[in-house]
Amino acid sequence: MSKTNAGNYFEDFRLGQVIDHATPRTLTSGDAALYGALYGPRFAVQSSSAFATAIGYPRAPIDDLLVFHTVFGKTVPDISLNAIANLGYADCRFLASVHPGDTLRATSEVIGLKENSSRKTGIVYVRSRGWRQDGACVLDFVRWVMVRKRDPQARVAAEAVPSLPEALEPAALGGACPILNVSAYDFTAAGSPHRFADYAKGERIDHVDGMTVEEAEHQIATRLYQNTARVHFNQFIEGQGRFGRRLIYGGHVMSLARALSFNGLANAFHLAAINGGRHVAPLFAGQTVFAWSCVLDTAELPGRTDVGALRVRTVATKERPCADYPDKAGDADDPAVILDLDYWVLMPR
Amino acid sequence: MSKTNAGNYFEDFRLGQVIDHATPRTLTSGDAALYGALYGPRFAVQSSSAFATAIGYPRAPIDDLLVFHTVFGKTVPDISLNAIANLGYADCRFLASVHPGDTLRATSEVIGLKENSSRKTGIVYVRSRGWRQDGACVLDFVRWVMVRKRDPQARVAAEAVPSLPEALEPAALGGACPILNVSAYDFTAAGSPHRFADYAKGERIDHVDGMTVEEAEHQIATRLYQNTARVHFNQFIEGQGRFGRRLIYGGHVMSLARALSFNGLANAFHLAAINGGRHVAPLFAGQTVFAWSCVLDTAELPGRTDVGALRVRTVATKERPCADYPDKAGDADDPAVILDLDYWVLMPR
Amino acid sequence: MSKTNAGNYFEDFRLGQVIDHATPRTLTSGDAALYGALYGPRFAVQSSSAFATAIGYPRAPIDDLLVFHTVFGKTVPDISLNAIANLGYADCRFLASVHPGDTLRATSEVIGLKENSSRKTGIVYVRSRGWRQDGACVLDFVRWVMVRKRDPQARVAAEAVPSLPEALEPAALGGACPILNVSAYDFTAAGSPHRFADYAKGERIDHVDGMTVEEAEHQIATRLYQNTARVHFNQFIEGQGRFGRRLIYGGHVMSLARALSFNGLANAFHLAAINGGRHVAPLFAGQTVFAWSCVLDTAELPGRTDVGALRVRTVATKERPCADYPDKAGDADDPAVILDLDYWVLMPR
Repeated sequence: MSKTNAGNYFEDFRLGQVIDHATPRTLTSGDAALYGALYGPRFAVQSSSAFATAIGYPRAPIDDLLVFHTVFGKTVPDISLNAIANLGYADCRFLASVHPGDTLRATSEVIGLKENSSRKTGIVYVRSRGWRQDGACVLDFVRWVMVRKRDPQARVAAEAVPSLPEALEPAALGGACPILNVSAYDFTAAGSPHRFADYAKGERIDHVDGMTVEEAEHQIATRLYQNTARVHFNQFIEGQGRFGRRLIYGGHVMSLARALSFNGLANAFHLAAINGGRHVAPLFAGQTVFAWSCVLDTAELPGRTDVGALRVRTVATKERPCADYPDKAGDADDPAVILDLDYWVLMPR
Repeated sequence: MSKTNAGNYFEDFRLGQVIDHATPRTLTSGDAALYGALYGPRFAVQSSSAFATAIGYPRAPIDDLLVFHTVFGKTVPDISLNAIANLGYADCRFLASVHPGDTLRATSEVIGLKENSSRKTGIVYVRSRGWRQDGACVLDFVRWVMVRKRDPQARVAAEAVPSLPEALEPAALGGACPILNVSAYDFTAAGSPHRFADYAKGERIDHVDGMTVEEAEHQIATRLYQNTARVHFNQFIEGQGRFGRRLIYGGHVMSLARALSFNGLANAFHLAAINGGRHVAPLFAGQTVFAWSCVLDTAELPGRTDVGALRVRTVATKERPCADYPDKAGDADDPAVILDLDYWVLMPR
Repeated sequence: MSKTNAGNYFEDFRLGQVIDHATPRTLTSGDAALYGALYGPRFAVQSSSAFATAIGYPRAPIDDLLVFHTVFGKTVPDISLNAIANLGYADCRFLASVHPGDTLRATSEVIGLKENSSRKTGIVYVRSRGWRQDGACVLDFVRWVMVRKRDPQARVAAEAVPSLPEALEPAALGGACPILNVSAYDFTAAGSPHRFADYAKGERIDHVDGMTVEEAEHQIATRLYQNTARVHFNQFIEGQGRFGRRLIYGGHVMSLARALSFNGLANAFHLAAINGGRHVAPLFAGQTVFAWSCVLDTAELPGRTDVGALRVRTVATKERPCADYPDKAGDADDPAVILDLDYWVLMPR
């Protein structure tokens, strides 16, 4: 039996299979500091313990996407080591807050399998969950990836494609956000006077700034998440591959876009859910990322008067400022688009 | 009303105007670790909790320049987003110590305005202050920047140029340094036998070592400070600009020079004040920074027998070792000079 | 007397000389986070406080190699600032565990001196030790370096070459590892079912993955260790030197190889000793590191039923995958080999 992990191939997965992923990871203020320095987010709740505790958090929480990337990273050795493409995310909810000192572990359940007609690959759907050391589920999401088959002739026992919601219902949001004392929320300190009611469905925001990504940055980030996907780290192999370069982890773009979105969405302090996301095109080191957002919807949360939810679509581009909202959906087909993310954020009311 | 921050233009400022800056920031041992790894300082008080507590600190303090950069960074979105040049610093004092867990916020007061003759730009003088969560003022400094006008025809209500001290008086120093038990100060552990009395006015020191700067390093540092100045991050735009490259944050050079100065000033454990500073020329990634210093003055602090103050001028260069003390002041005009910094440090007596 | 440290030359050393190195350094969870992000280790004990405490650690320990690099870094200004080559390590033991908040200082004793026939250089052997703030010795190792002479005519008072063990005895291992409750060791969470008894003498493991190193990464790492060796940081000088480039700190390769070895040695959670190590060839930024290992021996530890020891030889290469175990020992002479490390790791029984 080989001591090294060669990852799973498409025919190794079974519907209903549950996988406990290695390695548990304690997130500390050190991880939070490094995350901040890699992307530059400025949301006040995560940036300031004094701000967070004033409104009702026990202390400043870990950035939601650091939680996401940590849990995601744990799933890679079992789910996507032999993946060709990370196709999408859906039904992702942040269910409990994570603070420095908390330890996360991850599990996945195979909820869908669909062989491709070439018989060389198949699509694996997994529901992955992140768990805190006290047993609380902090994150729950579905992703699907195209995975190689070891043997094109191999058959899978059963196939199924899961039915996934287009978006989370507002009633499902807010588990990771305590009831806040909004009267103590200092909008000046937070960087913007705009609160929930100031945003309207259909509103578009150019986030203006651009951020150039260096090889060292995305490698440090991706190792911070203990994500072992080989395409991000090995120039010797990737130099001989399709792109001739290391691919940047798609989640790196999500975090950059989220940090850029502060300029226009400064009070969107909590990412409550990801309805769907696609990495439309790859990003490479040396390229500059821009982003714009559209408010898809606004919603009150049942039983809560402290915060409301904005459903936001953020589009990130490379080498392309976003003043005119470049798009790749519908009739638009701008090759600069690299990320299309649909998510719910919470804002004070 | 736009949701994004376009920054202030020269005509937006008013004499006496006070600005509360976003976003409060809790500095942690994670930030301290990253700061150390970005520059490599080895001053014992900041490096070792055991050393710091032995001489009278409650625990190892946050590096003074990390405090400076954090407060400075907060002022950028309001003061210098539309700046062409950061012209100078003066009257900068470190007033109270900052430890991991402390939260900083920043304010600025407009103390001077002077339109340039072209009427396209003007100089804005601000006194910026950093505040600890308990209300203590930890940092107080003046800087002046050349800021674009939105409309060349616009008039400012009133103009004034503040009178600034050439240097801080010794009596103004030491607020951030507790009374120390110098008998417990281990000079061997600190890396040098040289104390206050060993330095003489006029003495020059070549700090010998050089440090090459990478794009990833200055970007990570500048985001650590939540400094949003666009010239540091956006190669897409800067590639089309004056230099064709991203500019490195001037404070990055200050921190490099301070770290290099350990070799020759190992017991100058605390930066008490900055009398003045100018970024004489820009630094770009791939270039190597060197530094030399001259002792401008020595001073006892009224009522203190534990520490004395050295007034030091440190000159940093790029691509140019400093064995012969290259200069750009007086008759000298060495184009390699990038930083000219005049400051007070404290040393054990 | 010059204020700057020019380092010691060969004739400055004396047999029996003891040197107290500057600067003490408190290691924090911030340092641990950065170390993790620079190499991507996934050993569960260091990654998860919950995992570590479940099996008997007071909390997650600091990575053994971060301890090694920190102590090593402190010795550089006194021992190897004028070194031409770091020739080898031996008799290295990890004696007590280090946790976030602990402060380390370092001492060295000169145990060997041997002038080279050219009379321009000599070999200095030192036994270096790392000490915790409570006086416990946490690390003890021998290294030898080739150091320049200031004056070829200078004579050293006495010469001697120490006798060094080829490998540590199993009875000398384990001081830094508490008695563990192996029944609480979760092999699934740790990432592999393979325990001590599953490894056989002579077994070879290709660690499969490759990691490309960037200039910013090794500079940040080497500064994290406060290692001041000039060849790692100064492109202006190194660009005119033998290689035309900055040399990567050899310890950086050790940490990369150790992180890569997780894939095949996932339960080798503790590096207990280094029997010997040589940096066979230099590594430069942009190159990709691979590694393979061979089990040289297995040993029970006297009086301990919780863990056993594997003596492992890990070979790291650059620009060369290791599926066929490239070597430079014996008849083999593969120029891709950069590191040859012989060490003991502990594994649960």
